[in-house]
Amino acid sequence: MLLNKQAAINDAALRAIAHMPTKSLHVLMGPEFALRLTDTDLMRTAVFLAEKSYDEGGCPIGAVIMDNSTREILGKGHNTLVQENHPYNHGETSAIRDAGRIDFSKTTLFTSLSPCDVCATLICMRGFSQVVVGDVTNASGNEALLKSKGVQVRILEDRVGIALYARFRAEKPDQELEDWQGVSALKNHVGK
Amino acid sequence: MLLNKQAAINDAALRAIAHMPTKSLHVLMGPEFALRLTDTDLMRTAVFLAEKSYDEGGCPIGAVIMDNSTREILGKGHNTLVQENHPYNHGETSAIRDAGRIDFSKTTLFTSLSPCDVCATLICMRGFSQVVVGDVTNASGNEALLKSKGVQVRILEDRVGIALYARFRAEKPDQELEDWQGVSALKNHVGK
Repeated sequence: MLLNKQAAINDAALRAIAHMPTKSLHVLMGPEFALRLTDTDLMRTAVFLAEKSYDEGGCPIGAVIMDNSTREILGKGHNTLVQENHPYNHGETSAIRDAGRIDFSKTTLFTSLSPCDVCATLICMRGFSQVVVGDVTNASGNEALLKSKGVQVRILEDRVGIALYARFRAEKPDQELEDWQGVSALKNHVGK
Repeated sequence: MLLNKQAAINDAALRAIAHMPTKSLHVLMGPEFALRLTDTDLMRTAVFLAEKSYDEGGCPIGAVIMDNSTREILGKGHNTLVQENHPYNHGETSAIRDAGRIDFSKTTLFTSLSPCDVCATLICMRGFSQVVVGDVTNASGNEALLKSKGVQVRILEDRVGIALYARFRAEKPDQELEDWQGVSALKNHVGK
């Protein structure tokens, strides 16, 4: 396979991991490669999922769910507001949906952007014990809620992801507002 | 079409509405028929979505989203924990996903069971102004949260839905626990 024990961990590798369907990741990388992926690498993978979404015209937010023992990627995804006409599928909900019915208490969720109220509530209700947040510059607020429910929260900002989200916000402010607050917020939006 | 201006509104009609894909409802019923559907009828439709899920081996919770002006059904769905291997798709999230990117402030959500924390948070974040709850006997608790966020909440219990959910809970307690709290809750479950 391409990403064997000795293969370099670089953006090209992490971008391929981001785009490969989760169930097909085993043809791209082996377990020894997965074990070498650092938290910074997994956050960059979440950012490349955000980049994929941005390139599709969507909101650039991605997430990756890692098995705490094997560091295997069990689920991943990105916002699909535009792509699936989906009114609430954020990076976190997308990755959780992709992972399916597993024990999330044995996993870590890497999200490229600070979670919204719905995603933070879902993280608690599905029993996650660890969350890593890649951007508290463009959004923040629910880290305290997560901690109060016993979730370990780590901030690990990724400059590529932060720059990408800031660019999206400047380019498509209405799309961003809808993603956070729904269509009903747009009619009250200054300038609409 | 089958459900024209004069057609009877009965369980057979509401069950057909529940099972028909939302985008195809126009071949089953006309706008005059939709205008005659009462809140009790729409709640029973949500219950028949719950029944469909139960018959598929899933969790019996359904929801319907109605346009407040035309009483047209804009979205509907049921829990798909089992059917889609989906770790958090409840009746409400399913109906909201089905409706797509619309202005939910002009709609009413009918749910066969009192909403969980995630669904209640989503209802607030997507700007719903009205929610009707069909069962506060088997579950309750987030009605106060919804009201505190300005959502009008009405209780309109449906005895068929309440009996169905009670039967499911007795038959599949582990499946019910997973649906509310995730797989991680099962290992701590008394009797497991």
